[in-house]
Amino acid sequence: MGSIPQDFINRTARLSQEAVRPYPSSRKVFVTGSSPDVRVGMREVIQTPTPAAGGEEDNPPIPVYDTSGPYTDPAAHIDLLAGLPALRAPWIERRGDTEILPGPSSEYGRMRLRDPALEGLRFTHVHAPRRAKAGARVTQMYYARKGIITPEMEYVALRESLRIAELREDPRYAVLLRQHPGAALGAELEPVITPEFVRSEVARGRAIIPANINHPELEPMIIGRNFRVKINTNIGNSAVVSGIADEVEKMVWSVRWGGDTLMDLSTGRNIHETREWIVRNAPVPIGTVPVYQALEKVGGRAEELSWELFRDTLVEQAEQGVDYFTIHAGVRLAYIPLTAGRVTGIVSRGGSIMAKWCLAHHRENFLHTHFEDICEIMEAYDVSFSLGDGLRPGSIADANDRAQFAELETLGELTRLAWRHDVQVMIEGPGHVPMQLIRENMDRELRDCFEAPFYTLGPLTTDIAPGYDHITSAIGAAQIGWYGTAMLCYVTPKEHLGLPDKQDVRDGIIAYRIAAHAADLAKGFAGTQLRDNALSKARFEFRWLDQFNLSLDPDKAHQFHDETLPQEGAKLAHFCSMCGPHFCSMKITQEVRAFARAEGLPEQEAISKGLEQKAQEFLGNGAEVYRKA
Amino acid sequence: MGSIPQDFINRTARLSQEAVRPYPSSRKVFVTGSSPDVRVGMREVIQTPTPAAGGEEDNPPIPVYDTSGPYTDPAAHIDLLAGLPALRAPWIERRGDTEILPGPSSEYGRMRLRDPALEGLRFTHVHAPRRAKAGARVTQMYYARKGIITPEMEYVALRESLRIAELREDPRYAVLLRQHPGAALGAELEPVITPEFVRSEVARGRAIIPANINHPELEPMIIGRNFRVKINTNIGNSAVVSGIADEVEKMVWSVRWGGDTLMDLSTGRNIHETREWIVRNAPVPIGTVPVYQALEKVGGRAEELSWELFRDTLVEQAEQGVDYFTIHAGVRLAYIPLTAGRVTGIVSRGGSIMAKWCLAHHRENFLHTHFEDICEIMEAYDVSFSLGDGLRPGSIADANDRAQFAELETLGELTRLAWRHDVQVMIEGPGHVPMQLIRENMDRELRDCFEAPFYTLGPLTTDIAPGYDHITSAIGAAQIGWYGTAMLCYVTPKEHLGLPDKQDVRDGIIAYRIAAHAADLAKGFAGTQLRDNALSKARFEFRWLDQFNLSLDPDKAHQFHDETLPQEGAKLAHFCSMCGPHFCSMKITQEVRAFARAEGLPEQEAISKGLEQKAQEFLGNGAEVYRKA
Repeated sequence: MGSIPQDFINRTARLSQEAVRPYPSSRKVFVTGSSPDVRVGMREVIQTPTPAAGGEEDNPPIPVYDTSGPYTDPAAHIDLLAGLPALRAPWIERRGDTEILPGPSSEYGRMRLRDPALEGLRFTHVHAPRRAKAGARVTQMYYARKGIITPEMEYVALRESLRIAELREDPRYAVLLRQHPGAALGAELEPVITPEFVRSEVARGRAIIPANINHPELEPMIIGRNFRVKINTNIGNSAVVSGIADEVEKMVWSVRWGGDTLMDLSTGRNIHETREWIVRNAPVPIGTVPVYQALEKVGGRAEELSWELFRDTLVEQAEQGVDYFTIHAGVRLAYIPLTAGRVTGIVSRGGSIMAKWCLAHHRENFLHTHFEDICEIMEAYDVSFSLGDGLRPGSIADANDRAQFAELETLGELTRLAWRHDVQVMIEGPGHVPMQLIRENMDRELRDCFEAPFYTLGPLTTDIAPGYDHITSAIGAAQIGWYGTAMLCYVTPKEHLGLPDKQDVRDGIIAYRIAAHAADLAKGFAGTQLRDNALSKARFEFRWLDQFNLSLDPDKAHQFHDETLPQEGAKLAHFCSMCGPHFCSMKITQEVRAFARAEGLPEQEAISKGLEQKAQEFLGNGAEVYRKA
Repeated sequence: MGSIPQDFINRTARLSQEAVRPYPSSRKVFVTGSSPDVRVGMREVIQTPTPAAGGEEDNPPIPVYDTSGPYTDPAAHIDLLAGLPALRAPWIERRGDTEILPGPSSEYGRMRLRDPALEGLRFTHVHAPRRAKAGARVTQMYYARKGIITPEMEYVALRESLRIAELREDPRYAVLLRQHPGAALGAELEPVITPEFVRSEVARGRAIIPANINHPELEPMIIGRNFRVKINTNIGNSAVVSGIADEVEKMVWSVRWGGDTLMDLSTGRNIHETREWIVRNAPVPIGTVPVYQALEKVGGRAEELSWELFRDTLVEQAEQGVDYFTIHAGVRLAYIPLTAGRVTGIVSRGGSIMAKWCLAHHRENFLHTHFEDICEIMEAYDVSFSLGDGLRPGSIADANDRAQFAELETLGELTRLAWRHDVQVMIEGPGHVPMQLIRENMDRELRDCFEAPFYTLGPLTTDIAPGYDHITSAIGAAQIGWYGTAMLCYVTPKEHLGLPDKQDVRDGIIAYRIAAHAADLAKGFAGTQLRDNALSKARFEFRWLDQFNLSLDPDKAHQFHDETLPQEGAKLAHFCSMCGPHFCSMKITQEVRAFARAEGLPEQEAISKGLEQKAQEFLGNGAEVYRKA
């Protein structure tokens, strides 16, 4: 580490306390699979007991899905300079279908490695890249189709299930596990996610496990409509804003709040080195838009892009461990005129770059003509496609137009082609769409892209609220998640206006965790309502700290409560500042129940039994207050 | 004003600058109806021109619905001590069916007026109350059923239409007025709202115009599924927090950001005096929950409530000018046991108070037994019912249960009874409801309550995000608004945790304006998309200030943009800090268009015509990239 500036080490190796502080009243627990090295981390929120007549009623711990990796585990030793432990390394090794290369295969990767000026920025332990042996395909889809259940598949099965089978056997959870039937709208949800179910979904392309063989540090996760709805977050330095240390901190910050995957959209200097730091320390899949870096390499002149340069960039990034690439291969020359009458033209950065290239050369998009060449790279590292919607609508006016759907049909054709290579695919979707047009997006995607997972940006349901587009889009995201979208790309309050800061990232993530959870509830994903039930029970029983701790953002809930009632005693109070003690409906309801009890009726049953007869009489009577005249 | 403390005058008469500053680049315009005193205020956002080859292209002003009354009108003279001008006074006077009373009829109102200790708090120009002449009904529904179009009806017709008919004749708006067809889901939307349409909707009870004859200061507005979706905000001091001046400021703050109506939920001291200040200065309808004040009068002991005391409270508030009362007459004794197995019991404050009374007395809810007596008060002042959902679900677990729907059926019966008295009615709705159960709420309400306007609290689509319930609920609100709900009661980020401050109120209102607008777009309300189109065109053309000014919160949009690019020049820049100059898709799209133009093709047409042929060939070819194997 001799030549790394001390300042850089300090900044890089020390994450902010707020990014790594363990969650309140939580513990990291691990569920072990069929092999001891399949060890799935999840979080359990510990609850306090409910004071009850004659003692206390126990409230069991609530398991919650955890994207934060080792960062919130007090037992973990974090060393950003060394990167996270390579938990998948033995699995990949065991398969015996890959080889370790002597060094980067890409010209650019070799050049950066040789450049002495970068010594101070370079990740300290750059590993030699791994690649499929000649002729081998090393994708999860390939294995799935061969009938092989990989450790990655078993891992995600355990992770998705959150111990639901065990909890169902435990009487303490009986009431808490009650859940409304969902409206699955075509999803095929299982009562428990099994490894075999994961395999079958990956085999038919209905789900993907983005997991590059060069990113052994990641904790596998799955994206598919029959699993929990996921959310993607974006980071990236544009122009002069922010550096490497900031980006790593942002990544950790993102997984802390619940980002399931992360796209590194950096467009500034040192993209290559920044990415290495991020991937080595990321417990979640990392995606990129390789054309951004390719464009940097030609000084921002889109017309100078070439297949050779782009290809080198794909190899460079695949060997660093990027898990999915956004590829705008659907922006065909013939579709560009279809955008001419739009209010906001082409709003995808990648899409506009490729459109410019196409027009400048009067030729078909080279990503399209070279699509099979791209597939050959993807299959050798297990990089997943995120087929970019370069022609997505950027305004309500442009939603669901011919340009958008023409591209979607092309993405479907490309999906089938990728699947012939056993390459995993998800499909990117809009954008700005008014509510009444959202469903059509989902239905067409399922039809035209053969149920490949849909991954949408929002959609934003109106254009008129810059500064609040996390909300305009969470509304659309919740709906399209319910309709079948597998992953929601978050939008921060700064969308359309500037680069998000940490607060914006947190706000965007929580808005999207809400949308994803609301969608899981609506679909009826098994066990989803457990957290709602536990939190509401805590709320009703005035267990304030449990209410905070079970929430998506315990710190915010705690802080808001304390703004008006900061005293520690208020955490035990049977009211809050909202209604005050006399008007607290929950307090009164408890009094009502106590009252009935005092009347000699045994609590709830009292009210039920004592008054039920009257209620039955009334209801049996036709429940009419006033007879019709 | 002799005895009013100077400090109180200063605080009361001086609203904060941020609450009354005119909106940027906007002007107040007035549309006059058939009589010169029907003068409807709306806001126009003035746009800058688009730089174009050979000069500038004009961008027309965009009219937007304005709830802020005179407060944002630089030409208006605001004097909180005098109250707003009584714009409806001549209309009410002209009808000749009311009389001015010598003083308050309620015992409590008289007592407060006599109390010398209140001199310092009392509104300075307390007016003598007005009441229907003996035997007369003075409700908008009564007039509507008689075939009379009142000035109030004409006012709301002009207000809802926002000059759409004129704009349709103006070629500058031709493109901007393009709009996707809505999915009305049973709504019967008109291309232009006419006074006769308003009358017919009010007559059949499908819409209400809350407008107490003692609140002549209000600018009439309408609540009904065939009109713009409205939002309600709440203010109120609980326990010791906040005083009169704060409440008036909050009211002005609420209408500034877009609150269509406002409920004063105060439960602290001096409710009566606070309300007078609020009503006299409110340009929007004011609602209350009278049982809150009644409970204060009996020292918080629900079991001591009586019909006589409650009746006096209704008269007291009706004579002050409250426009709608939440009445929990549907909380019947027989339904209380139905809540016994709930996770969160009864969460409506009013509902829990009435439940306690019912159980304490083992008698039917006196609001139910005295419902016709209440109607007689309502019809004499034109106070509208907001039939309270005292048994609404307070958690996902409790959604759509028997207790909730039993009450809803009762509210339907009460609606018909109120309509026999020509009293206007809206129906309150939930609450906490997962997405898949929202539609059933709307469908049942339409059926069981005969299309009386639905007025819902959210619904919140998950319980797990305290601190962000403006978002959990905006997701549900947008959907139920689309399905047919007429008014959405806002939820602030502090819901469940504490009393909202000004920032929370603003956040809550904007979230709900987003939900309401998204619902209007989805339904296809005429002209709704104009603002989206104008804003998106400004965005595409890098008219940053126009983009900010057209947004729901111009200050926030401006501030967010400036956080990374504060220089004045950046307001003209063809990029923002999000992507930087090289990666701005909108900039590249413009370059693409310019490129085509430079190739000798006339701009957009160029791309269209020049490439359309190829596109047609391609699409005609089956649009298949790869032939099936």
